[in-house]
Amino acid sequence: MSIIVQKFGGSSLADAKCIERCAQRAVKTFQEGHQVVVVVSAMGDTTDRLANLATQITGKPSKREMDMLLATGEQVSIALMSMALDALGVDAVSMTGRQIGLVTDQVHTKARIRSIDTDRLKNELDSGRIVVVAGFQGVSEQDQITTLGRGGSDTTAVAIAAALGVKSGSGGCEIYTDVDGVYTADPRRVRNARKLDQISYDEMLELASLGASVMNSRAVVFGQKYDVPIHVRSSSKPDEGTIITKETPAMEDIKVVGCALTPDLGRLSLRGIPNKPGIQALIFGHLSDAGVLIDDIMQTEIGDTATISFTVEHQDLAEVKPSVQKALEEIGSGELAIEVGLAKVSAVGLGMRTHTGVAAEMFSALGKAGIHINNITTSEIKISCIVPKEHGDLALQVVHDAFGLDQRDQSSDSSKTINKVRKPL
Amino acid sequence: MSIIVQKFGGSSLADAKCIERCAQRAVKTFQEGHQVVVVVSAMGDTTDRLANLATQITGKPSKREMDMLLATGEQVSIALMSMALDALGVDAVSMTGRQIGLVTDQVHTKARIRSIDTDRLKNELDSGRIVVVAGFQGVSEQDQITTLGRGGSDTTAVAIAAALGVKSGSGGCEIYTDVDGVYTADPRRVRNARKLDQISYDEMLELASLGASVMNSRAVVFGQKYDVPIHVRSSSKPDEGTIITKETPAMEDIKVVGCALTPDLGRLSLRGIPNKPGIQALIFGHLSDAGVLIDDIMQTEIGDTATISFTVEHQDLAEVKPSVQKALEEIGSGELAIEVGLAKVSAVGLGMRTHTGVAAEMFSALGKAGIHINNITTSEIKISCIVPKEHGDLALQVVHDAFGLDQRDQSSDSSKTINKVRKPL
Repeated sequence: MSIIVQKFGGSSLADAKCIERCAQRAVKTFQEGHQVVVVVSAMGDTTDRLANLATQITGKPSKREMDMLLATGEQVSIALMSMALDALGVDAVSMTGRQIGLVTDQVHTKARIRSIDTDRLKNELDSGRIVVVAGFQGVSEQDQITTLGRGGSDTTAVAIAAALGVKSGSGGCEIYTDVDGVYTADPRRVRNARKLDQISYDEMLELASLGASVMNSRAVVFGQKYDVPIHVRSSSKPDEGTIITKETPAMEDIKVVGCALTPDLGRLSLRGIPNKPGIQALIFGHLSDAGVLIDDIMQTEIGDTATISFTVEHQDLAEVKPSVQKALEEIGSGELAIEVGLAKVSAVGLGMRTHTGVAAEMFSALGKAGIHINNITTSEIKISCIVPKEHGDLALQVVHDAFGLDQRDQSSDSSKTINKVRKPL
Repeated sequence: MSIIVQKFGGSSLADAKCIERCAQRAVKTFQEGHQVVVVVSAMGDTTDRLANLATQITGKPSKREMDMLLATGEQVSIALMSMALDALGVDAVSMTGRQIGLVTDQVHTKARIRSIDTDRLKNELDSGRIVVVAGFQGVSEQDQITTLGRGGSDTTAVAIAAALGVKSGSGGCEIYTDVDGVYTADPRRVRNARKLDQISYDEMLELASLGASVMNSRAVVFGQKYDVPIHVRSSSKPDEGTIITKETPAMEDIKVVGCALTPDLGRLSLRGIPNKPGIQALIFGHLSDAGVLIDDIMQTEIGDTATISFTVEHQDLAEVKPSVQKALEEIGSGELAIEVGLAKVSAVGLGMRTHTGVAAEMFSALGKAGIHINNITTSEIKISCIVPKEHGDLALQVVHDAFGLDQRDQSSDSSKTINKVRKPL
């Protein structure tokens, strides 16, 4: 019997009616003959409400106590979901993170999963029950309640699927959310963006790092590690969503699977700094203290001196600047230049590994549209161009069009039967 | 070092400000050199709010899932209380019922405590921390989350005190509530009712069974069993409250410690029923199915037939009537008479055991006030008179006055130095 793990997020569980709707989904899957594990987040804005209570008490809540507090949100959800399943005539049992033996490290508020003891889970499933598991939470080896941080319920779902031995062809992990799936670009920015039937873990991770918030990256990494196919789909529509899965040879035929825009960036350049060992560590050590995401680091040399530049989200500029100035003071030379009004357009695709000329196609498309390319960075499966902020949306559309992303079959060799390969599992 | 267990109820924890105020209490006790365990209920109306969520999902929630749901209320409280204590500069750690090893039987929604594993508790206390424990909840030997039912947090507090070896003279258990303590009568009914400094477990149990809702009866029984002095006091005022403790010889000198009114009763009488073995079991079997509290059962014989009568709260009459009629149908003879408009005034005191004439004093006082006594029942330390409902409040005041309950020294032998004995511990 195959096992389906279904995860419902907070917005899908806003109230009793929503919970019932999700329960019906689970019952349908159960009645189709699968064993079903339901993983739930806290209802609606519960987590915010609880965090707000903590803020009223103290500006600096202990992380251990925050975990104790926030873990209640998911516990409420599992009890109610279990009741809803019972009311639909299916035997259900709720279980906390601890009860399924989800053991984590001790890092409160962003613990990492160490192991899941599936005995109790399997017993309950084999007794014909739907097991409803609290996402986001676990227990450390010291018997402290921990939470997994942002998107933790996604990770719980994929980890349970992995622990239960779910693999391609023998069940799966379904992430129900308020979007239909993964798109070739953000549909709010690109009118003809298309929902993908399938995407590889690596591509999904690149898109997620560019801000596609469909799915938590840690969950994707977990899925990749244990070969768990992850089906991202809408909790309100019956349509198939997007399956995140291991790459197939056919995926390599697609040069670009999706593109993304980071709409408002600033770039900091440290010019005229001595190019000697340890200088980078000094600079980025200070930046890491600021706790801000640094992107697209570049270094160029001119004689004995170097220029190091990197981009940050515009909103983080104010926080980053003092760290950089402190670093420059310690170095004793060099100057800081800041550019604002930048955006980044990126194209992602496994096909870049084997197809040549993808970068050239992208530059050419941007050039034809009269968009100035300020800077270029690449990874094995991604090309990013920094462009003026005011051309950001246009650049995204241009790249989307250049690679024919609105077409199901957008490979350069149009004789390939991509359609067949990209059907849902 | 002595251990003080402090329990704060839901109304004392209505919001962040209230939680801070309770935290200050605990810190004060801690700074006076005690080890402190704080036991908390769910905040304000949390339990009702959660139960209401369940009702929205299903009319018949499983009891196991209700426990899973309701236990979150106390978990929220312990996290916030711990944060509040931390913010006041005292190291604190929250613990769920399971984490302190509070093991119960399997009876969900009204589980009974089997054992508490105090090792972890003691370790935390010995590390100089205030331990904040979730009241009301435990875990069964099958690792299911259970709750202890109404007033369960009181029971948790007394049970922890017992498990930690708290006894008279070596710490105590403080129950903070929205009343000042235990009164000689309900102060809303008797103007000159007086707060008692001290009362015995047995007296408290009698008063509680008469509706004095100061303290959960199960908690009092627990205290009695393990000789834990229970200090009932106000969470908003610094004054001493009432200590519920084991009886002392001096207590026996006090004939009546308090009195109570049950203001609106009905009496059902089953007349002309055959007086044969098993008939009572039949009748009260049906009544027990109705789940209504039956009081003051009396049986009188006339020849071969008997009359069995009992009282119930007026509001329960409608529910009881069909059960009685069903019983009469099965018996095949007898008729039902119902009286309404009754009240019950009771006097409670250990001194009744040894003093004679207490009942006569009470009857005489009622008689002088022109109050008709409809019926009398007694226990070892209680006398109850059924009187017309319209004379209920007067009867209560008359009895209160007759035994001089507004005076600290109300024993018949006024040379006794009750004052000294009745000082707070």
